[in-house]
Amino acid sequence: MPKKAGNISKFGERSLIRWFQELITPFDGALLKGMEDAVAVSINETALVVNTDMLVASTDVLPEMTASEIAWKAGVMGLSDLAAKGVSPLGLVASLGFPKTTEANFAAAIVGGLNSVCREHDTYYLGGDTNQCVELVIDCTAFGTVPKSQLIRRRGATPGDLIAVTGEFGYTGTLLRAVYEDRQEPSQLLRQIRDKALRPLARLQEGQLLAQKKVVSAAIDSSDGLAWSLHEIATASEVGFQIEKLPIPLSCTKFANANGWDAIDLALYGGEEFELVVTIPSEKWKIALKTIEGIGGQLIPIGKVVEAPEKRLVVKGEERVIEPKGYEHFV
Amino acid sequence: MPKKAGNISKFGERSLIRWFQELITPFDGALLKGMEDAVAVSINETALVVNTDMLVASTDVLPEMTASEIAWKAGVMGLSDLAAKGVSPLGLVASLGFPKTTEANFAAAIVGGLNSVCREHDTYYLGGDTNQCVELVIDCTAFGTVPKSQLIRRRGATPGDLIAVTGEFGYTGTLLRAVYEDRQEPSQLLRQIRDKALRPLARLQEGQLLAQKKVVSAAIDSSDGLAWSLHEIATASEVGFQIEKLPIPLSCTKFANANGWDAIDLALYGGEEFELVVTIPSEKWKIALKTIEGIGGQLIPIGKVVEAPEKRLVVKGEERVIEPKGYEHFV
Repeated sequence: MPKKAGNISKFGERSLIRWFQELITPFDGALLKGMEDAVAVSINETALVVNTDMLVASTDVLPEMTASEIAWKAGVMGLSDLAAKGVSPLGLVASLGFPKTTEANFAAAIVGGLNSVCREHDTYYLGGDTNQCVELVIDCTAFGTVPKSQLIRRRGATPGDLIAVTGEFGYTGTLLRAVYEDRQEPSQLLRQIRDKALRPLARLQEGQLLAQKKVVSAAIDSSDGLAWSLHEIATASEVGFQIEKLPIPLSCTKFANANGWDAIDLALYGGEEFELVVTIPSEKWKIALKTIEGIGGQLIPIGKVVEAPEKRLVVKGEERVIEPKGYEHFV
Repeated sequence: MPKKAGNISKFGERSLIRWFQELITPFDGALLKGMEDAVAVSINETALVVNTDMLVASTDVLPEMTASEIAWKAGVMGLSDLAAKGVSPLGLVASLGFPKTTEANFAAAIVGGLNSVCREHDTYYLGGDTNQCVELVIDCTAFGTVPKSQLIRRRGATPGDLIAVTGEFGYTGTLLRAVYEDRQEPSQLLRQIRDKALRPLARLQEGQLLAQKKVVSAAIDSSDGLAWSLHEIATASEVGFQIEKLPIPLSCTKFANANGWDAIDLALYGGEEFELVVTIPSEKWKIALKTIEGIGGQLIPIGKVVEAPEKRLVVKGEERVIEPKGYEHFV
């Protein structure tokens, strides 16, 4: 085993993960290879897709979040990666770690919240494990199936493909900055932003339909931020991207402007959003759009896949490079 | 939602879990109902069985355990419940929480240890999630399949069935008591006990074969201790049990005797063992024994299922009640 001196905060989450991957015996039967958001194995012609995502109070929870909002977020974190793969969930299990001093009603509200977020996404919270821990930890493992021939990957985007997203960006970035800069005067605008940021949805139906129609060349959710997600697709697919439009909600633009913040930055690098970022061959765009609009969803074109290494945003003639940054542990 | 005042340490893990279960919408398609060790859903004629188990440093790790031993235990915790259900694993995912000050080489040894424990059990560590956490947390989710008709449950034991275990009991109880009472003089005996206690095996092959032969009426692993496991089967199956023999390793008996401890107590209530506890209709005993001996395993008869509520142990004419106790969080 190669050795690395020093503690993990020297390395950062993503470089650690790459190192860890070298230590693991690869499974030939794995249906998703390389850096991916979930694991997948075969059960006959079906791909079983499993995703585990840990929510930790000290890094993933804002102080004013309710138990129900915390559980909601944990559940969506687990389900959202299934959405990006086109998977229909079979259920979700969760391991809970509670400090000994946790109020029983708070713990129950976590459990109730996990149940709610699963029911909202037409699946079931099936139970799990309960433990004592120094801080609150909720580890959700969501699992489901998709026909192997429909499984969507990060890899597969080709120059010329359109890039689209299933919703707007900016709520979490704006809320986080408001919290960190203590701009929490309870304005109606900020309340609106807060409600949207803390009740995200996993775009399962969108992912499933896009997979069934085979109209998507690559997809990822945006849990590490839009910019990071674009870079992940670009890296996996060995392409670049040119973004021409960012769908930012008016409430975020207003709140950002009032505070002298750059709304585009908040939308690009906010993170913890769960809209899907998909690439679609241009000849399949019409059917993709019709499919998603047919269920009352959104598919918003934001740019196109180009040759590597271009990675830029042009808005109203103003050009900027989209940096590969987003939320990262240990840094 | 019913309310419970006070913090969770007032209630204890098992009473909390019962309460939590009332808050969860039951899934009609669940193949395992009530208090069980894993969840199971249908994929056509196959049962997909998923088990999530969290290891937390402050409650599950002895100070002198190496990273590799910690990871091994976490992996076996996840796999062992699959064994009790007769499941063939498809893989294991793990969410890791590391304090920021963790040595990079320690973290890598955790990952390498998870890989090793999976390979030892003929399955794969498929990856997962890496996080920052106030303490070390390893949440393993193991999953696999078994034909629906072969899925083993806790419920199903009938008076007259034989009770058997797949190995000896006492290593962990003896080691834990030695650690707590600081009897850690590095004797060869204690080293032997330590090595056995910290490298348990999930009895996957035994579980799978017993399931295939359909010779088991109920099963559970012994992760909460032999006594607790017997009580769990008894409760789920609405039966009692009479234990006539406890397979305790000579090393444990010797070490216990030298220290004036009761070896039977250590074997009954030690916990964190992973041998299977199974009940077998007497007419199927011979084929069960032959099957397990055929792979070089052990199937040790320890007593029989009787009418509820009897729950006792008779060894050499001395009789004692087996209490429903074992390791429990929050108490």
